[in-house]
Amino acid sequence: MTNERASPPAGPDSAPGSRRPGGRTARTRAAVRDAVLTGLTEHGYPGLSVEYVAERSGVHKTTLYRRWGGLEGLVVDALDLAGEDSWKPPETGSLRDDLRALTRETAASFADPAAAAAPRAFIAAAFQSAKAADALHAFYAERFRRCESVVLRAVERGEIPRSTDAGALVRAATAPLFLRLFVTREPVDEALADQSADGALAAALAGVFTTQPKPQLQPEPQPQL
Amino acid sequence: MTNERASPPAGPDSAPGSRRPGGRTARTRAAVRDAVLTGLTEHGYPGLSVEYVAERSGVHKTTLYRRWGGLEGLVVDALDLAGEDSWKPPETGSLRDDLRALTRETAASFADPAAAAAPRAFIAAAFQSAKAADALHAFYAERFRRCESVVLRAVERGEIPRSTDAGALVRAATAPLFLRLFVTREPVDEALADQSADGALAAALAGVFTTQPKPQLQPEPQPQL
Repeated sequence: MTNERASPPAGPDSAPGSRRPGGRTARTRAAVRDAVLTGLTEHGYPGLSVEYVAERSGVHKTTLYRRWGGLEGLVVDALDLAGEDSWKPPETGSLRDDLRALTRETAASFADPAAAAAPRAFIAAAFQSAKAADALHAFYAERFRRCESVVLRAVERGEIPRSTDAGALVRAATAPLFLRLFVTREPVDEALADQSADGALAAALAGVFTTQPKPQLQPEPQPQL
Repeated sequence: MTNERASPPAGPDSAPGSRRPGGRTARTRAAVRDAVLTGLTEHGYPGLSVEYVAERSGVHKTTLYRRWGGLEGLVVDALDLAGEDSWKPPETGSLRDDLRALTRETAASFADPAAAAAPRAFIAAAFQSAKAADALHAFYAERFRRCESVVLRAVERGEIPRSTDAGALVRAATAPLFLRLFVTREPVDEALADQSADGALAAALAGVFTTQPKPQLQPEPQPQL
């Protein structure tokens, strides 16, 4: 569940001043994005500059300032572009296996230095730039929104209560991985991924993520499974 | 569960070149630590320098280099010192309430800008310095080690299986908060704290954190409660 280096989007190019979707403008945007990713990965946000992006991408500095406004705009657009991929959560047929596949994918992607470099750099940049933090928020809001389909399908199958907060459940499933990756700086592996997924599932089955009023406050019938 | 600005430790001063525990050396160390915290909070790791710490603390630059080696050493020692407080996890008499008190405390401390500034700065610095990352790892390893008493007491009371992995449980309880604070950049509140605690408890009761071999692979009697 990371931001892959996707190909330039085939759809309408939403960059400022865009023309000819998929054409020169999209190629420029992709080249600039790649330069930003490389810079963030190699030097971090503190070491990134518009000059670096210009040199690396071959796009003139004045163009970068005109179209992206500056460094923060470049980082934000790179993150926006990373979110324009076609990533979908797993669909195995059971909530347990979907959640395990999701957490395993998260663990594996951050264990791969090449795949992890960009998301790690964006998470770090968010500490230094409020705009990057906003873009990171939007990126993960969309990522987890896609993940909710895992929960909605489980509800349709009658595995968990209809009132389950899908967003809370998929966040809980992956949270122990992110905690170890970026706060406690501990290793993550497949066993931890499975444990995290199973823990969130157990919590969901116990009704921890149901959004209805608490039964003891306002009794109501249990949702139909 | 954050690193408070504790008073200088009364115990032996373990800083390089330390003499007279609690005396001038300890006061110097505390002054330097406060300067590092202020610098990290106001400027982040990229904006911190030995010159800044010298000016802010009133300790000469050559002393800082001699005793701390440089910027990374200063940050690491500030984090070590932050971990030398007397913080203990809550002790309410039930695992559910202990976990809720713990997650509420975590949420509240990060909601308070003054209390959150230092831990946030350390978590950010770990992205830029491998030594800071190691120190952060050690800090949280010790913090979560203290939290394990919550689980061990619950085991003694027979609330959860004896083979429960206490470290995994207390990490799971707080992980959804850290995910939102530092990755998805979403708000955390008391309701989320309670949900996170309850989710980890439900997982523990379901046996997700038990460390024994999986029953289907190697059947063995359930642990005595």
